[in-house]
Amino acid sequence: MKIIIVGGSGTIGQAVMDRLAKKHTLISASREHGDVRFDITDPASIKKMYQSVGDFDAVVSTVGKVHFADLSAMTPEDYDIGLHNKLMGQVNLVLIGQHYINNHGSFTLTSGILSHDPIRGGTSASMVNGAIDSFVKSAAIELASGIRINAISPTILTESMDKYGDYFPGFESVPAERVALSYQKSVEGLQTGQIYQVG
Amino acid sequence: MKIIIVGGSGTIGQAVMDRLAKKHTLISASREHGDVRFDITDPASIKKMYQSVGDFDAVVSTVGKVHFADLSAMTPEDYDIGLHNKLMGQVNLVLIGQHYINNHGSFTLTSGILSHDPIRGGTSASMVNGAIDSFVKSAAIELASGIRINAISPTILTESMDKYGDYFPGFESVPAERVALSYQKSVEGLQTGQIYQVG
Repeated sequence: MKIIIVGGSGTIGQAVMDRLAKKHTLISASREHGDVRFDITDPASIKKMYQSVGDFDAVVSTVGKVHFADLSAMTPEDYDIGLHNKLMGQVNLVLIGQHYINNHGSFTLTSGILSHDPIRGGTSASMVNGAIDSFVKSAAIELASGIRINAISPTILTESMDKYGDYFPGFESVPAERVALSYQKSVEGLQTGQIYQVG
Repeated sequence: MKIIIVGGSGTIGQAVMDRLAKKHTLISASREHGDVRFDITDPASIKKMYQSVGDFDAVVSTVGKVHFADLSAMTPEDYDIGLHNKLMGQVNLVLIGQHYINNHGSFTLTSGILSHDPIRGGTSASMVNGAIDSFVKSAAIELASGIRINAISPTILTESMDKYGDYFPGFESVPAERVALSYQKSVEGLQTGQIYQVG
């Protein structure tokens, strides 16, 4: 398969690329690294990215910029960061990509555990993750026959514990290598409309 | 209690006002009707609305503008309608209202069944409803002690079946009068972080 990996320079993205590289042709696409450069917050840039890649069988997105701050300090603009990047960035990958993807292709997006297991400062992440999960369930029943979509919803990564562990008290972390398995399941399997919880 | 009802001219809003009017002082706030006029998509207008009302004990929001269209025809701008109105409109009611609401006050927002039971043309509604449910769970653990928040997630209203029933094949409708009970439970009860499914 020819697979576009969006956000391949991140910890999850790297693990997914390691996992999928042996059997597939990978094209990494992100803002500052990879084979193709594009801006996920700009629909015109997403369209150009797809056109430059040519035909493809799967899109795997591991992007996820959201703003963390206490609810009492959050502003409407702080929420816009997550809405434009992690939410609508990924939704637009599907919205635009549905017109370019090969038959029997798939989209795999990334949400996260905070949709249903919240932490202090995480209202934007919770909101965005919940939105992605529900979008995926809904888009799955509408995509053209044979096109699939799933979301991977990981807990905190073991690799991120040093930096962010204090914000996730009592959460059991999961190594990126294990998270990558769910992306493989989504891409190579046949299920659609699934939210794979990892952790 | 002194309760601000946002969107009180809608079918649910009217039923909630009927239900709560006997025991409480209601102030209806919306764009074109009611005691106070304001624009829910404009944070400055929300702030002015709260300041003009003075102290209050509860906010009940029954607003919900989202765009319905097939996924293959949806544009990023179509999603903006729901993100600005039903999602961030209600989030900003909480974000700004948390600094004005009386101690032991509550916020009650409206999401909907499409978060987990999708229909054709409903990807924006699904996304927004999922976002609201997750925001409510997350905000509930962060609001100042004694301030509560819940969401009501109704199925299609019996009163809307003539107009929208064809879009909800096999869904069992619920009369607005029954939906209103959940708003009363949220306002007069003591639970927080709950998503009350009705229908």
